[in-house]
Amino acid sequence: MAATAASLRLAITTGEPAGIGPDITLQALLAEMEAPGSAHHACTYTVIGDRTLLAERAALLGIAPAWQRALDSGRVAIAHVPLGVPCIPGQLDTQNGAYVLAVLDEAIDGCQHGRYHGMVTAPLQKSVIADTGIAFTGHTEYLAERTGTPHVVMMLAGPQPAHANAMLRVALATTHLPLRAVADAITTPLLVDALHIIAHDLRRRFGLPKPRILVTGLNPHAGEQGHLGREEIDVIIPALQQAAADGLDVRGPYPADTLFQPRYLQDADCVLAMYHDQGLAPLKYGTFGHGINVTLGLPLIRTSVDHGTALDLAGTGRAEYGSMRAALQAAVDMARCELSARDATA
Amino acid sequence: MAATAASLRLAITTGEPAGIGPDITLQALLAEMEAPGSAHHACTYTVIGDRTLLAERAALLGIAPAWQRALDSGRVAIAHVPLGVPCIPGQLDTQNGAYVLAVLDEAIDGCQHGRYHGMVTAPLQKSVIADTGIAFTGHTEYLAERTGTPHVVMMLAGPQPAHANAMLRVALATTHLPLRAVADAITTPLLVDALHIIAHDLRRRFGLPKPRILVTGLNPHAGEQGHLGREEIDVIIPALQQAAADGLDVRGPYPADTLFQPRYLQDADCVLAMYHDQGLAPLKYGTFGHGINVTLGLPLIRTSVDHGTALDLAGTGRAEYGSMRAALQAAVDMARCELSARDATA
Repeated sequence: MAATAASLRLAITTGEPAGIGPDITLQALLAEMEAPGSAHHACTYTVIGDRTLLAERAALLGIAPAWQRALDSGRVAIAHVPLGVPCIPGQLDTQNGAYVLAVLDEAIDGCQHGRYHGMVTAPLQKSVIADTGIAFTGHTEYLAERTGTPHVVMMLAGPQPAHANAMLRVALATTHLPLRAVADAITTPLLVDALHIIAHDLRRRFGLPKPRILVTGLNPHAGEQGHLGREEIDVIIPALQQAAADGLDVRGPYPADTLFQPRYLQDADCVLAMYHDQGLAPLKYGTFGHGINVTLGLPLIRTSVDHGTALDLAGTGRAEYGSMRAALQAAVDMARCELSARDATA
Repeated sequence: MAATAASLRLAITTGEPAGIGPDITLQALLAEMEAPGSAHHACTYTVIGDRTLLAERAALLGIAPAWQRALDSGRVAIAHVPLGVPCIPGQLDTQNGAYVLAVLDEAIDGCQHGRYHGMVTAPLQKSVIADTGIAFTGHTEYLAERTGTPHVVMMLAGPQPAHANAMLRVALATTHLPLRAVADAITTPLLVDALHIIAHDLRRRFGLPKPRILVTGLNPHAGEQGHLGREEIDVIIPALQQAAADGLDVRGPYPADTLFQPRYLQDADCVLAMYHDQGLAPLKYGTFGHGINVTLGLPLIRTSVDHGTALDLAGTGRAEYGSMRAALQAAVDMARCELSARDATA
């Protein structure tokens, strides 16, 4: 029996040091630990990053004593990774690009070797890493490569305040591609794979026994019977037919502009959108800063915030940490769910 | 002084006869006329469509007596256009494709010759018209062609229930194109033109003296400094610079997935999105069935619903007519605003 919250160990990567990653890590963690009756009280957390950076940021935010108490409690540890060069909040420095990757690598290695049951990632600045000469298109893609996973799926999720906080989940068939590359990247095997990955992870890590997935079209009005593009007919519908034949509960393709309405969403657990802005603009509008990012299909659990580094807010105390806190909570829930599933099949 | 509501004459095109267009026309019109204290009481309306179809649909909906009273009042007239073949609700027939266009043509001609101050269009089924062999990609494009307007801009608008009903307006740089054609269709002159059209119409027809326009990027994260596509750098930013030099209040390009948040929208009158789903998915989520469609840049005023023909609801009485009613109201407001502007410059 390994499924109690008390035994859960989570890693948190603090992301781009010049951004709000360190800030929201400290703030969300303290809020989570101090909340009375939190279901997550009994987890232990490892914060991965530069020890001095974290102390400096805690001082800037006026929360140094609380941070020290958290460290003293034994429930929070630091896995120290040294910065390349000292960091000034708000000022990017490509000499810290390698640092950001080293932080990530520690979390990945720890998850793979059982030191952590999952990881939560604060935002990084892709351009800083790309400018160091390392091909880097995003957390999601990097995690896939490092874990040798041929296909992962990025999913964002959050409650919808305007609709009784009903959960909205949006997965993406493609992620960080130039828009002009999207149509050619969408293939029937890609979509079938994505649907299987979504269904598998929703079952295993979200406790949904028979996930219901709605799928968008690629073109306006889902191609309108081929008048506005043929990818629905040639690519998407065959994928839906294959997935349905495999036993999945999938429906579509629906026009993306009208799919995000309660009358459709109320009977679904997840939407699969074809590309980034198509799915994430309504998701982020609907979840209003409380969305989280989950990577499906990995051999490890990973959640993240749904926003960027907000360089201008680093060190000011004005960054919102609601998404980071939700990402912490989701990782705990997912890890617990997976441990239960593992116990059940052991 | 021609700007009183009493003198306003609006045309309503009833759209695809097998869809909900006739239904929502009748229902919205009756609701609007019967609402106590409506600012729009004193308008007169011409409903364009087949007289028998309208009578049959009114009977199906159980509102035949009210419809007859509206006709008897003198405030509503029918401009009769005969159907090609009798219509069964829910059953498309390409033999009525020409009818749908004839209905539209009467409205356009009437606006151009002063019989109407503006037109409101119920939804049509593009495929029915396209299947007749006529190249037809949408109302908006057809109106542009028929009025000899080289460039029009489609804008959707509505109140946001989740945000104190603040008005959200989203204009599109491209509309009904296959997604794979979008990137090449976005050019600097196109965007500069679109920004001028939006600013002009918001001033003249919406009474906004200095419209503030936010512009999305084309690529995820607005291209992230060129790492995810170069159109922002090569095409969009030059357009913003040109428009700003022309005196317009424009800002961007912003990542589309995070732009639709109160912190950005509260200081803006309109968003210019690069393509259909990028702008309309959040707009329709946010306005939740109460959005309307406005064609900017035309020599005539045109508003429309933001939804389709909903064939399965035709004749059932279950179609929502909130968007149609909002489109009627918006056309009245715009016509009044334009008449005032005309008077002021006369």
